[in-house]
Amino acid sequence: MPTTVAAYAAPSATEPLVRTTIERRDVGPHDVLIEIRYAGICHSDIHTVRGDWRSIAYPQVVGHEIAGIVTEVGSAVTRHAVGDRVGVGCMVNSCGECENCRAGEEQYCLNGNVGTYASVDRDGTITQGGYSTHVVVTEDFVLSIPDALDLATAAPLLCAGITTYSPLRHWNAGPGMRVAVVGLGGLGHMAVKFAHAFGAHVTVLSQSLSKKDDGIAMGADDYRATSDDATFAELRSSFDLIVNTVSAVIPMNRYLSLLRLNGTFVSVGAPGEPLPVPVFSLFNQRRSFAGSSIGGIRETQEMLDYCAEHGIAPETELIRADRVNEAWERVLASDVRYRFVIDASTI
Amino acid sequence: MPTTVAAYAAPSATEPLVRTTIERRDVGPHDVLIEIRYAGICHSDIHTVRGDWRSIAYPQVVGHEIAGIVTEVGSAVTRHAVGDRVGVGCMVNSCGECENCRAGEEQYCLNGNVGTYASVDRDGTITQGGYSTHVVVTEDFVLSIPDALDLATAAPLLCAGITTYSPLRHWNAGPGMRVAVVGLGGLGHMAVKFAHAFGAHVTVLSQSLSKKDDGIAMGADDYRATSDDATFAELRSSFDLIVNTVSAVIPMNRYLSLLRLNGTFVSVGAPGEPLPVPVFSLFNQRRSFAGSSIGGIRETQEMLDYCAEHGIAPETELIRADRVNEAWERVLASDVRYRFVIDASTI
Repeated sequence: MPTTVAAYAAPSATEPLVRTTIERRDVGPHDVLIEIRYAGICHSDIHTVRGDWRSIAYPQVVGHEIAGIVTEVGSAVTRHAVGDRVGVGCMVNSCGECENCRAGEEQYCLNGNVGTYASVDRDGTITQGGYSTHVVVTEDFVLSIPDALDLATAAPLLCAGITTYSPLRHWNAGPGMRVAVVGLGGLGHMAVKFAHAFGAHVTVLSQSLSKKDDGIAMGADDYRATSDDATFAELRSSFDLIVNTVSAVIPMNRYLSLLRLNGTFVSVGAPGEPLPVPVFSLFNQRRSFAGSSIGGIRETQEMLDYCAEHGIAPETELIRADRVNEAWERVLASDVRYRFVIDASTI
Repeated sequence: MPTTVAAYAAPSATEPLVRTTIERRDVGPHDVLIEIRYAGICHSDIHTVRGDWRSIAYPQVVGHEIAGIVTEVGSAVTRHAVGDRVGVGCMVNSCGECENCRAGEEQYCLNGNVGTYASVDRDGTITQGGYSTHVVVTEDFVLSIPDALDLATAAPLLCAGITTYSPLRHWNAGPGMRVAVVGLGGLGHMAVKFAHAFGAHVTVLSQSLSKKDDGIAMGADDYRATSDDATFAELRSSFDLIVNTVSAVIPMNRYLSLLRLNGTFVSVGAPGEPLPVPVFSLFNQRRSFAGSSIGGIRETQEMLDYCAEHGIAPETELIRADRVNEAWERVLASDVRYRFVIDASTI
């Protein structure tokens, strides 16, 4: 029997979120029922609800940075047990059969993975996310949260953490490499912490210097304002890797000009419109413009374990669920240091 | 004393090329005087003269696929001797001091290399290209053409050859890799020959199937028309590397969708306008969009030697110099199989 649970849902693209109830499916043999304790607020939640990327059906519950406790497991579950501290990120299923899934890169499932919300689940229903008290997820997409991590601050690792950890690992951020992070928000501040932990030289490129002290405290070696033309002149052809966390259209020629020979500009921020790329900016220094999408389940677990081992955690602001609409407005105004987390006990 | 030599020059952006004379500088201690035997016609010649990329000064002699014989050397020259078979490509100088020059990647000189034409030379003059009977070039930018290569067919290797050889090498085209080549023109047909020689599986993506037999004969394993929507559906997420030789604005989302996990779309064709890139196309499969510009002098020599060893040569159509304007029209109409080469003895 499906279970009725409390949630905050978007009634439409434009109305505020409202408290309501939704149905969670019965716990199947391979499923885990999670009592959600904390749910991070990601800018993607807002883009999705507002239809910035595509049209969706309403009402819709969003949230894909979920941390909680296992309260029930299906008969065939082996990876998790009742009482375990667990997390769920941006996807809750994939085909499991394509070459990417077999390689542990479920985020690139060739048959399309199932997003944690606003996605067609394998049973045909639309997935509903983490702004809720409970969720049922197939065990293979449930992560173990190490004891050393606080559940509340662990939640944002499931999206903001892995989304920045994965490209930094893929492009080998480490000693001797110069890495720039564009934007010091939820994703950006995690990119700074990871790149610094990996041993790279880290520069933050932010609109202003208003968060400079924070950035330096997080591990940045340099912090520059993109509103200052001197930034682009002085840092020309100097970075091996730029991680762009901004989901707005930015002047690509200026940012690409900052890459040195064989450098890569990898975007994890997702503007709804295409970015105009002058090809000559890529010819010069044999530059690349790449994208990266979250990370696989295996890598997400590796990232959580790395955070536990190295004492890495997001900077968070815990809110009651009834403040979620106000929090969204603050996310849109870039007025968050650096991630809102909903206390799910208040839903 | 400068030497007066014959050349075909563009009087303006819109007028036909005309026979005229230009001055070549005196042979300095490190210079080589080359009697040009053959000069390839590259689409870049036309873009440059017509001001598609930037404004230039006129009259302008273009041509950067030069093959000839050394007829005089400066007192300090050690690399070349009178009588040597030599070539000159797209650049004739660089700073020699930046990290890229020191690494043998002069094409990415951080202080800007000197193009073979329409570029400010180190003495402040504007460089004049290969549609001419002679040229004076500093010895470090003069390549040796192996005896096994015919001079006339070697000429296009200096641009079309190295421009495709370099990215195929950089992105490790070889056995087990699926490579697509967009456009079967001067650059594209060389990309097919090299990728096939390196052992990759090669697919040509061309507007129509009109050159299919040629493409297969050059080594393509598959040949698809981009005018057929089925091409994009059937080849989705299948290539490791796409080499784009087309210098027109193409629908990037469609071409990027053809890349499999970690695949790279590298452009060597240069549209004058920015290409609109939907970032979601890059997120999916962690794709990259890169650029590549010719190759360094060391790699260009390696490419010439490789061609000699493996019997690789462009398909060329030799023309008299007084047919150059007609040849340009045919290049613009994609009516060339596959590279025009000017017989410089007719200038």
